[in-house]
Amino acid sequence: MQLARLPGIGTKSAQRLAYHLLDIPESAARELAASINHARDTVRYCSICGNYTDVEPCAICTDPSRSAGTLCVVRDAKDVMALEKMREFRGQYHVLQGTISPMDGIGPDDIRIKELLARVEAGGVQEVILATNPDVEGEATAVYIARLLKAKGVRVTRIAHGIPIGGNLEYVDEMTLLKAVEGRREM
Amino acid sequence: MQLARLPGIGTKSAQRLAYHLLDIPESAARELAASINHARDTVRYCSICGNYTDVEPCAICTDPSRSAGTLCVVRDAKDVMALEKMREFRGQYHVLQGTISPMDGIGPDDIRIKELLARVEAGGVQEVILATNPDVEGEATAVYIARLLKAKGVRVTRIAHGIPIGGNLEYVDEMTLLKAVEGRREM
Repeated sequence: MQLARLPGIGTKSAQRLAYHLLDIPESAARELAASINHARDTVRYCSICGNYTDVEPCAICTDPSRSAGTLCVVRDAKDVMALEKMREFRGQYHVLQGTISPMDGIGPDDIRIKELLARVEAGGVQEVILATNPDVEGEATAVYIARLLKAKGVRVTRIAHGIPIGGNLEYVDEMTLLKAVEGRREM
Repeated sequence: MQLARLPGIGTKSAQRLAYHLLDIPESAARELAASINHARDTVRYCSICGNYTDVEPCAICTDPSRSAGTLCVVRDAKDVMALEKMREFRGQYHVLQGTISPMDGIGPDDIRIKELLARVEAGGVQEVILATNPDVEGEATAVYIARLLKAKGVRVTRIAHGIPIGGNLEYVDEMTLLKAVEGRREM
Protein backbone atom coordinates (compact mmCIF):
# COMPACT_ATOMS: atom_id res chain seq x y z
CA MET A 1 0.00 0.00 0.00
CA GLN A 2 1.27 3.44 -0.99
CA LEU A 3 0.22 5.23 2.20
CA ALA A 4 2.44 3.09 4.43
CA ARG A 5 5.47 4.31 2.47
CA LEU A 6 4.95 7.89 3.63
CA PRO A 7 7.40 9.07 6.31
CA GLY A 8 6.15 8.60 9.85
CA ILE A 9 3.20 6.47 8.74
CA GLY A 10 3.20 2.88 9.99
CA THR A 11 0.84 0.12 8.82
CA LYS A 12 -1.77 1.00 11.46
CA SER A 13 -1.82 4.70 10.54
CA ALA A 14 -1.87 3.81 6.86
CA GLN A 15 -4.94 1.68 7.42
CA ARG A 16 -6.65 4.51 9.28
CA LEU A 17 -5.82 6.94 6.48
CA ALA A 18 -7.10 4.49 3.86
CA TYR A 19 -10.46 4.10 5.61
CA HIS A 20 -10.62 7.88 6.03
CA LEU A 21 -10.07 8.39 2.29
CA LEU A 22 -12.93 5.97 1.57
CA ASP A 23 -15.25 7.46 4.20
CA ILE A 24 -14.99 11.10 3.12
CA PRO A 25 -17.07 12.39 0.18
CA GLU A 26 -15.65 11.21 -3.13
CA SER A 27 -14.93 14.80 -4.23
CA ALA A 28 -12.66 15.41 -1.22
CA ALA A 29 -10.60 12.32 -2.00
CA ARG A 30 -10.33 13.25 -5.68
CA GLU A 31 -9.24 16.76 -4.67
CA LEU A 32 -6.40 15.37 -2.57
CA ALA A 33 -5.26 13.18 -5.48
CA ALA A 34 -5.53 16.14 -7.84
CA SER A 35 -3.52 18.43 -5.58
CA ILE A 36 -0.76 15.82 -5.28
CA ASN A 37 -0.65 15.63 -9.08
CA HIS A 38 -0.80 19.39 -9.37
CA ALA A 39 2.10 19.82 -6.95
CA ARG A 40 4.21 17.34 -8.89
CA ASP A 41 3.29 19.05 -12.16
CA THR A 42 4.09 22.59 -11.08
CA VAL A 43 6.76 22.46 -8.36
CA ARG A 44 10.27 22.46 -9.79
CA TYR A 45 13.72 23.28 -8.51
CA CYS A 46 14.63 26.93 -8.94
CA SER A 47 17.37 27.01 -11.59
CA ILE A 48 19.32 29.58 -9.55
CA CYS A 49 19.14 28.49 -5.91
CA GLY A 50 17.86 24.91 -6.15
CA ASN A 51 14.97 25.49 -3.75
CA TYR A 52 11.47 24.21 -4.55
CA THR A 53 9.40 26.71 -6.50
CA ASP A 54 6.37 26.96 -8.75
CA VAL A 55 7.73 29.98 -10.60
CA GLU A 56 11.07 30.17 -12.36
CA PRO A 57 13.25 31.65 -10.91
CA CYS A 58 11.83 31.38 -7.39
CA ALA A 59 10.28 34.21 -5.38
CA ILE A 60 13.34 34.54 -3.12
CA CYS A 61 15.82 34.82 -6.01
CA THR A 62 13.73 37.52 -7.71
CA ASP A 63 12.80 39.49 -4.55
CA PRO A 64 14.35 42.95 -5.14
CA SER A 65 14.47 43.67 -1.39
CA ARG A 66 16.91 40.79 -0.86
CA SER A 67 20.63 41.19 -1.40
CA ALA A 68 22.34 38.94 -3.94
CA GLY A 69 25.62 39.80 -2.21
CA THR A 70 25.12 37.25 0.58
CA LEU A 71 24.48 33.59 -0.19
CA CYS A 72 23.38 31.22 2.54
CA VAL A 73 24.31 27.63 1.64
CA VAL A 74 22.05 24.92 3.07
CA ARG A 75 21.52 21.22 2.57
CA ASP A 76 17.89 21.13 1.53
CA ALA A 77 14.65 23.04 1.05
CA LYS A 78 13.53 22.35 4.62
CA ASP A 79 16.52 24.32 5.88
CA VAL A 80 15.51 27.32 3.77
CA MET A 81 12.11 27.19 5.44
CA ALA A 82 13.71 27.04 8.91
CA LEU A 83 15.93 30.04 8.17
CA GLU A 84 13.07 32.01 6.61
CA LYS A 85 11.01 31.56 9.78
CA MET A 86 13.73 33.55 11.55
CA ARG A 87 12.68 36.60 9.43
CA GLU A 88 16.12 38.19 9.68
CA PHE A 89 18.18 36.92 6.80
CA ARG A 90 17.76 39.19 3.76
CA GLY A 91 20.24 37.57 1.38
CA GLN A 92 19.67 34.70 -1.03
CA TYR A 93 20.06 30.94 -0.69
CA HIS A 94 21.89 28.15 -2.40
CA VAL A 95 20.40 24.70 -1.78
CA LEU A 96 22.96 21.92 -2.18
CA GLN A 97 20.30 19.20 -2.34
CA GLY A 98 22.45 16.94 -0.20
CA THR A 99 25.74 16.79 1.70
CA ILE A 100 29.01 15.06 0.88
CA SER A 101 28.78 11.59 2.39
CA PRO A 102 31.33 9.03 1.15
CA MET A 103 29.58 6.33 3.23
CA ASP A 104 26.46 6.79 1.11
CA GLY A 105 28.46 7.24 -2.08
CA ILE A 106 27.63 10.96 -2.33
CA GLY A 107 30.63 12.93 -3.59
CA PRO A 108 31.11 16.66 -4.28
CA ASP A 109 29.86 16.21 -7.86
CA ASP A 110 26.56 14.73 -6.70
CA ILE A 111 25.41 17.92 -4.97
CA ARG A 112 25.04 21.46 -6.29
CA ILE A 113 28.60 22.67 -5.59
CA LYS A 114 29.45 23.37 -9.24
CA GLU A 115 26.39 25.62 -9.44
CA LEU A 116 27.51 27.47 -6.28
CA LEU A 117 30.98 28.09 -7.73
CA ALA A 118 29.40 29.35 -10.94
CA ARG A 119 27.22 31.80 -9.00
CA VAL A 120 30.24 33.13 -7.10
CA GLU A 121 32.34 33.34 -10.28
CA ALA A 122 29.58 35.33 -11.97
CA GLY A 123 30.41 38.10 -9.48
CA GLY A 124 28.42 40.22 -7.05
CA VAL A 125 28.71 37.81 -4.12
CA GLN A 126 30.58 39.26 -1.14
CA GLU A 127 29.86 36.64 1.50
CA VAL A 128 28.93 32.96 1.53
CA ILE A 129 27.44 31.72 4.82
CA LEU A 130 27.84 27.96 5.14
CA ALA A 131 24.75 26.82 7.05
CA THR A 132 24.98 23.07 6.63
CA ASN A 133 24.14 21.12 9.79
CA PRO A 134 26.82 20.78 12.47
CA ASP A 135 27.08 17.01 12.00
CA VAL A 136 29.86 14.99 10.35
CA GLU A 137 28.59 15.32 6.76
CA GLY A 138 27.54 18.95 7.13
CA GLU A 139 30.90 19.89 8.63
CA ALA A 140 32.85 18.03 5.93
CA THR A 141 30.78 19.68 3.21
CA ALA A 142 31.34 23.14 4.74
CA VAL A 143 35.10 22.61 4.94
CA TYR A 144 35.23 21.34 1.35
CA ILE A 145 33.26 24.30 -0.03
CA ALA A 146 35.20 26.82 2.09
CA ARG A 147 38.47 25.65 0.53
CA LEU A 148 37.12 26.06 -3.00
CA LEU A 149 35.56 29.47 -2.33
CA LYS A 150 38.49 31.06 -0.52
CA ALA A 151 40.56 30.75 -3.70
CA LYS A 152 37.94 32.98 -5.31
CA GLY A 153 38.44 35.83 -2.84
CA VAL A 154 34.98 35.77 -1.32
CA ARG A 155 34.29 36.01 2.44
CA VAL A 156 33.34 32.56 3.74
CA THR A 157 31.66 32.20 7.14
CA ARG A 158 30.20 29.32 9.13
CA ILE A 159 27.14 29.58 11.36
CA ALA A 160 27.97 29.41 15.05
CA HIS A 161 28.06 26.21 17.03
CA GLY A 162 27.26 26.61 20.70
CA ILE A 163 24.71 26.36 23.42
CA PRO A 164 21.12 26.75 22.23
CA ILE A 165 19.18 29.69 23.66
CA GLY A 166 17.51 28.72 26.91
CA GLY A 167 19.97 25.85 27.19
CA ASN A 168 21.94 24.91 30.26
CA LEU A 169 25.68 24.24 30.52
CA GLU A 170 24.94 21.30 32.73
CA TYR A 171 22.90 19.41 30.13
CA VAL A 172 24.90 20.23 27.02
CA ASP A 173 27.29 17.62 25.54
CA GLU A 174 31.04 18.15 25.85
CA MET A 175 31.66 18.75 22.14
CA THR A 176 29.10 21.55 22.09
CA LEU A 177 30.55 23.06 25.26
CA LEU A 178 34.00 22.92 23.69
CA LYS A 179 32.74 24.69 20.56
CA ALA A 180 30.94 27.27 22.71
CA VAL A 181 34.16 28.14 24.56
CA GLU A 182 36.30 28.04 21.39
CA GLY A 183 33.80 30.24 19.60
CA ARG A 184 33.50 32.82 22.39
CA ARG A 185 33.14 36.39 21.29
CA GLU A 186 34.17 39.77 22.57
CA MET A 187 31.36 41.44 24.52
CA MET B 1 10.09 12.23 55.86
CA GLN B 2 13.50 13.67 54.95
CA LEU B 3 14.10 11.43 51.90
CA ALA B 4 11.07 12.77 50.00
CA ARG B 5 12.62 16.25 50.14
CA LEU B 6 15.57 15.14 48.00
CA PRO B 7 15.42 16.37 44.39
CA GLY B 8 13.82 13.93 41.98
CA ILE B 9 12.56 11.69 44.80
CA GLY B 10 8.78 11.40 45.12
CA THR B 11 6.92 9.76 47.98
CA LYS B 12 7.02 6.30 46.34
CA SER B 13 10.78 6.44 45.72
CA ALA B 14 11.31 7.82 49.22
CA GLN B 15 9.45 4.84 50.66
CA ARG B 16 11.54 2.43 48.62
CA LEU B 17 14.74 4.14 49.78
CA ALA B 18 13.56 4.05 53.39
CA TYR B 19 12.93 0.29 53.27
CA HIS B 20 16.26 -0.18 51.53
CA LEU B 21 18.04 1.70 54.32
CA LEU B 22 16.38 -0.58 56.87
CA ASP B 23 17.04 -3.78 54.92
CA ILE B 24 20.77 -3.31 54.35
CA PRO B 25 23.25 -4.20 57.14
CA GLU B 26 23.23 -1.60 59.89
CA SER B 27 26.86 -0.69 59.22
CA ALA B 28 26.09 0.28 55.61
CA ALA B 29 23.29 2.61 56.69
CA ARG B 30 25.48 4.17 59.40
CA GLU B 31 28.25 4.66 56.83
CA LEU B 32 25.92 6.57 54.54
CA ALA B 33 24.84 8.81 57.43
CA ALA B 34 28.47 9.30 58.44
CA SER B 35 29.55 10.22 54.92
CA ILE B 36 26.76 12.79 54.66
CA ASN B 37 27.95 14.31 57.95
CA HIS B 38 31.57 14.10 56.84
CA ALA B 39 30.77 15.89 53.56
CA ARG B 40 28.98 18.69 55.40
CA ASP B 41 31.86 18.96 57.89
CA THR B 42 34.66 19.15 55.33
CA VAL B 43 33.27 20.62 52.10
CA ARG B 44 33.46 24.41 52.03
CA TYR B 45 33.40 27.10 49.38
CA CYS B 46 36.86 27.93 48.04
CA SER B 47 37.65 31.46 49.25
CA ILE B 48 39.08 32.35 45.81
CA CYS B 49 36.73 30.86 43.19
CA GLY B 50 33.65 29.97 45.24
CA ASN B 51 33.57 26.35 44.03
CA TYR B 52 33.02 23.50 46.50
CA THR B 53 36.25 22.17 47.95
CA ASP B 54 37.60 20.19 50.89
CA VAL B 55 40.95 21.98 50.82
CA GLU B 56 41.45 25.73 51.04
CA PRO B 57 42.08 27.13 48.41
CA CYS B 58 40.64 24.51 46.06
CA ALA B 59 42.67 22.15 43.86
CA ILE B 60 41.86 24.13 40.68
CA CYS B 61 42.94 27.48 42.12
CA THR B 62 46.26 26.05 43.31
CA ASP B 63 47.02 23.89 40.23
CA PRO B 64 50.29 25.35 38.87
CA SER B 65 49.55 24.00 35.36
CA ARG B 66 46.46 26.23 35.10
CA SER B 67 46.66 29.85 34.04
CA ALA B 68 45.36 32.52 36.41
CA GLY B 69 45.20 34.85 33.40
CA THR B 70 41.87 33.47 32.18
CA LEU B 71 38.83 33.38 34.45
CA CYS B 72 35.73 31.45 33.43
CA VAL B 73 32.66 32.86 35.20
CA VAL B 74 29.85 30.37 35.86
CA ARG B 75 26.65 30.28 37.87
CA ASP B 76 27.30 27.31 40.12
CA ALA B 77 29.55 24.40 41.02
CA LYS B 78 27.71 22.04 38.66
CA ASP B 79 28.77 24.23 35.73
CA VAL B 80 32.43 23.92 36.76
CA MET B 81 32.01 20.15 36.65
CA ALA B 82 30.44 20.34 33.18
CA LEU B 83 33.27 22.50 31.84
CA GLU B 84 35.95 20.34 33.47
CA LYS B 85 34.56 17.27 31.70
CA MET B 86 35.50 19.02 28.46
CA ARG B 87 39.21 18.65 29.48
CA GLU B 88 40.26 21.64 27.41
CA PHE B 89 39.94 24.72 29.58
CA ARG B 90 43.19 25.38 31.46
CA GLY B 91 42.33 28.63 33.17
CA GLN B 92 40.62 29.18 36.51
CA TYR B 93 36.98 29.61 37.50
CA HIS B 94 34.85 32.11 39.32
CA VAL B 95 31.59 30.68 40.67
CA LEU B 96 28.92 33.36 41.11
CA GLN B 97 26.70 31.10 43.25
CA GLY B 98 23.63 32.41 41.47
CA THR B 99 22.48 34.76 38.73
CA ILE B 100 20.87 38.17 38.88
CA SER B 101 17.11 37.58 38.98
CA PRO B 102 14.96 40.54 40.06
CA MET B 103 11.88 38.29 39.95
CA ASP B 104 13.39 36.17 42.73
CA GLY B 105 14.78 39.20 44.56
CA ILE B 106 18.39 38.34 43.67
CA GLY B 107 20.39 41.46 42.87
CA PRO B 108 24.04 41.97 41.89
CA ASP B 109 25.09 42.18 45.55
CA ASP B 110 23.61 38.78 46.34
CA ILE B 111 25.99 36.88 44.08
CA ARG B 112 29.81 36.85 44.00
CA ILE B 113 30.32 39.80 41.64
CA LYS B 114 32.25 41.92 44.16
CA GLU B 115 34.69 39.03 44.61
CA LEU B 116 35.12 38.80 40.82
CA LEU B 117 35.90 42.50 40.54
CA ALA B 118 38.40 42.19 43.38
CA ARG B 119 40.16 39.31 41.60
CA VAL B 120 40.40 41.31 38.38
CA GLU B 121 41.56 44.46 40.22
CA ALA B 122 44.29 42.43 41.95
CA GLY B 123 45.85 42.10 38.47
CA GLY B 124 47.12 39.23 36.33
CA VAL B 125 43.77 38.54 34.64
CA GLN B 126 43.84 39.07 30.86
CA GLU B 127 40.50 37.54 29.88
CA VAL B 128 37.19 36.87 31.60
CA ILE B 129 34.97 34.33 29.82
CA LEU B 130 31.32 34.77 30.82
CA ALA B 131 29.87 31.26 30.76
CA THR B 132 26.53 31.84 32.45
CA ASN B 133 23.63 29.98 30.80
CA PRO B 134 22.07 31.48 27.66
CA ASP B 135 18.74 32.11 29.39
CA VAL B 136 17.23 35.42 30.52
CA GLU B 137 18.96 35.56 33.92
CA GLY B 138 22.29 34.25 32.62
CA GLU B 139 22.29 36.74 29.77
CA ALA B 140 21.38 39.67 32.04
CA THR B 141 24.09 38.68 34.49
CA ALA B 142 26.67 38.45 31.69
CA VAL B 143 25.76 41.88 30.32
CA TYR B 144 25.89 43.41 33.81
CA ILE B 145 29.32 41.94 34.58
CA ALA B 146 30.69 42.81 31.13
CA ARG B 147 29.87 46.48 31.67
CA LEU B 148 31.69 46.53 35.02
CA LEU B 149 34.73 44.66 33.75
CA LYS B 150 35.27 46.59 30.54
CA ALA B 151 35.93 49.73 32.59
CA LYS B 152 38.83 47.80 34.07
CA GLY B 153 40.54 47.18 30.74
CA VAL B 154 40.23 43.40 30.73
CA ARG B 155 39.16 41.33 27.70
CA VAL B 156 35.57 40.14 28.25
CA THR B 157 34.16 37.31 26.11
CA ARG B 158 30.90 35.39 26.05
CA ILE B 159 30.61 31.69 25.18
CA ALA B 160 29.01 31.07 21.79
CA HIS B 161 25.31 30.59 21.29
CA GLY B 162 24.40 28.46 18.33
CA ILE B 163 23.40 25.08 17.05
CA PRO B 164 24.56 22.19 19.24
CA ILE B 165 26.93 19.71 17.61
CA GLY B 166 25.01 16.97 15.84
CA GLY B 167 22.02 19.30 15.77
CA ASN B 168 19.81 20.02 12.81
CA LEU B 169 18.74 23.40 11.46
CA GLU B 170 15.28 22.06 10.97
CA TYR B 171 14.71 21.26 14.63
CA VAL B 172 16.41 24.24 16.22
CA ASP B 173 14.31 27.14 17.57
CA GLU B 174 14.34 30.46 15.73
CA MET B 175 16.20 32.39 18.44
CA THR B 176 19.05 29.89 18.36
CA LEU B 177 19.13 29.96 14.57
CA LEU B 178 19.25 33.75 14.67
CA LYS B 179 22.15 33.67 17.14
CA ALA B 180 23.91 31.06 15.01
CA VAL B 181 23.72 33.29 11.92
CA GLU B 182 24.61 36.46 13.86
CA GLY B 183 27.55 34.71 15.47
CA ARG B 184 28.91 33.23 12.23
CA ARG B 185 32.68 33.11 11.98
CA GLU B 186 35.23 33.40 9.23
CA MET B 187 36.31 29.97 7.99
